[in-house]
Amino acid sequence: MITVYGMAISGNCWKVAAILQLTGRTFAWIETDSNSGATRTPEFLALNPNGKVPIAVLEDGAVITESGAMLAHFAEGTPWLPAPGLARTRVFEWLFFEQYSHEPYIAVARNIITYLKQADRFAERLTQCRERGAQALAVMERRLAAHDWLTDAGPTIADLALFAYTHVADEGGFRLADYPGVAAWVARLAALPGVTTLPRAA
Amino acid sequence: MITVYGMAISGNCWKVAAILQLTGRTFAWIETDSNSGATRTPEFLALNPNGKVPIAVLEDGAVITESGAMLAHFAEGTPWLPAPGLARTRVFEWLFFEQYSHEPYIAVARNIITYLKQADRFAERLTQCRERGAQALAVMERRLAAHDWLTDAGPTIADLALFAYTHVADEGGFRLADYPGVAAWVARLAALPGVTTLPRAA
Repeated sequence: MITVYGMAISGNCWKVAAILQLTGRTFAWIETDSNSGATRTPEFLALNPNGKVPIAVLEDGAVITESGAMLAHFAEGTPWLPAPGLARTRVFEWLFFEQYSHEPYIAVARNIITYLKQADRFAERLTQCRERGAQALAVMERRLAAHDWLTDAGPTIADLALFAYTHVADEGGFRLADYPGVAAWVARLAALPGVTTLPRAA
Repeated sequence: MITVYGMAISGNCWKVAAILQLTGRTFAWIETDSNSGATRTPEFLALNPNGKVPIAVLEDGAVITESGAMLAHFAEGTPWLPAPGLARTRVFEWLFFEQYSHEPYIAVARNIITYLKQADRFAERLTQCRERGAQALAVMERRLAAHDWLTDAGPTIADLALFAYTHVADEGGFRLADYPGVAAWVARLAALPGVTTLPRAA
């Protein structure tokens, strides 16, 4: 069986659980809290020298790191990832956009505000997160104002990757009501059979 | 003919030129300086709403964004990208690692120190860049101390993606001599036929 090391509140980890569930695989989940140092132990670093969750351990013991690589790995040969060519490239554009221009601001703002509860200490960082996060949501809105999904291939891992932190962006201080196309897309994806959402902070 | 909008000193833009050259394609290059605002004009934003170089405009007018997506697009069907399966997934692990854990520190340090020449103004940012950049180089060293290439598939777009900012990491204040496996790999890749290097700052 596939084993995922992940943190239940992490959108990056949610992505892996989502694609495994949506492609009908069973897997074990080992809760691993990066905020408390569980990803910096010698045991964990032996699995991923970069010290980050999520990771997936395959049946043969091979370890896969990086949520974007895992999404593509487990989606290969399913409708969640189009065949090679421009349709597939459109999916990867969004996967890289998410990791470079979206997650570092929207996920980080959520962690600072809702989980670390240290908005004052990280005030300067939060200012950057708000500005760049709003830019990222505006880029998504430009597409989603007129389309159901991020690419023309229907729902793909591009949508899963962006849904991860967008559907909880309010926990980072973002108002999805300001991005009506994005808000409608969040509802559309959440309504697909088998799609779960992240737990909300208590 | 393919047209690339890029900045000659940018490692992200170098990646696109590299894979096009190494796969035998001719292309036009339109120099586009993001440090002076050329990626925020209405004309450029119409091509890439995210306002970043590089972008590639294909013969039919389709625009591809995100250097990682472009590497995969142009490498498809060549030895630079293995067929789908674990070998390909290993390549994508490095592509995502580069954009999330390497480029935001090593490329940013290089830009602050060597191109913006504002090390004092961004002192706090540089401290983070030095720490996280060193971590990224250590992750690479762990692999490259005992292997010729980042994955077992020989030289791939994973190597091109990481070479981009690693071979000029000294311009960001990093000492490659501290990472002998990485330094040997830089020399190994630079020696391959057709591989060019970034211009050095004057």
